[in-house]
Parts: sequence; structure tokens; C-alpha cells
Amino acid sequence: MSTEELRKASCQPLKGAEHRLPADQVNALLVKLPGWTLLDDGRMIGRDYRFDGFLGALSFANALGWIAEQENHHPDLELGWGYCRVRFSTHDVGGLSRNDFICAAKADALLAS
Amino acid sequence: MSTEELRKASCQPLKGAEHRLPADQVNALLVKLPGWTLLDDGRMIGRDYRFDGFLGALSFANALGWIAEQENHHPDLELGWGYCRVRFSTHDVGGLSRNDFICAAKADALLAS
Repeated sequence: MSTEELRKASCQPLKGAEHRLPADQVNALLVKLPGWTLLDDGRMIGRDYRFDGFLGALSFANALGWIAEQENHHPDLELGWGYCRVRFSTHDVGGLSRNDFICAAKADALLAS
Repeated sequence: MSTEELRKASCQPLKGAEHRLPADQVNALLVKLPGWTLLDDGRMIGRDYRFDGFLGALSFANALGWIAEQENHHPDLELGWGYCRVRFSTHDVGGLSRNDFICAAKADALLAS
């Protein structure tokens, strides 16, 4: 999938290890999302975004929270003065699924819009 | 200061190690704030709040963000499905100041209101 296809895709309910992406597919998707890195032994992807001040970071978290609710796929966030750190993982598959990359692409799109 | 006095106080601009609270004062304030613990070798205080779902945690972060802007004293937050972890420290004094405890009390008050 291209970055644009990821941005336009919707998350699907996924449960079970059969939906966990193998390493080659993870790597193929990761190159479509510059700035995102593998974390937690490949079970998670993350990106750190920078902002001016606190409210920029919180506003971004809100926009991403809106998307997360729409997609029913939620990030773990760390935020404070000037930063918002985003982490996606799919606990129900025990690692990374297509949903994580879809939401990562949508997070990036918030900054591009 | 009592918990109530902390809740009603306002943060003041503080800069310099002379505003860093000594351990006995830190401990005296900490007992006024059940649930808060010392972190980072005594340079930070934190509390974890639990919520139902993602939006509860994000809404709490927003309310706390409003207070942080009013007080010009900002937390570091970690949030996701069902949780919001709050951390206060005063970088400009190199540890804990009265401002951290004031904002911690105001964070607790959000749940009591």
C-alpha cells in the first residue's frame, strides 16, 4: 500500500495472531512513513512530533484522538511542552497490524493538511 | 499548606535553585496529596488516573491543559485507553517547587468537582 492508500484506508476489527504482520510486510509499510520507527522489539511503531508550546501538542492529541475514535484504534500518547510522542500497537494481535500503519498515516496527514 | 490551600493557590514564576523545595517540605506537601508519589530521585511528582476508555483520559488531559495554561506551569502527560499519567517538575529550579504541588492539587480537584 502507498502512503496515500494508507491515509484513505479504514481500520478493521482485528483479533488473533494471524493478523499480526510479518517482518517483511512491516518493513515495506514502514518505508512509506518517514519519521516512524519500530519499537518494543517490533511490536509497536512510534513517532515524535514537535510543536511550539503546550497547546499545540495538546491540540494535535485531540485531533488524533478524534481519528482514533472514528477508527476505534487508539494510540498511546506522551505529551508536554513542545512535543507529542505517538505509539501504535494492536494488542489484540500481539504486535503490529495494518491498522497501526493506517492510523500512523492519518496522524501524519494531520500535519500535512 | 493544606490540600485546600494548595488548590486555591496560584503558581508564581520561579527560577533558580533557591526555589527548589528541600526534602522535608516536599514530604510535608506530599502527604496532603494522596495518590501522588515522588519520581526521578525526588525531582518530580506523579500520579496515574484511571478512566473508562480513551476519551475520558483525553478530556481530563484537556481540562488539566487549561489549568496548566492559566498557571503557566505544564505537566508531562502519558495517556491512552483508560489512563492518564501526570508528571510535574519545575525545570527552572532543577527539581520540585511549590508550583508542582499547587498544580497537582488542582488536577485532583478536577476529579472531585
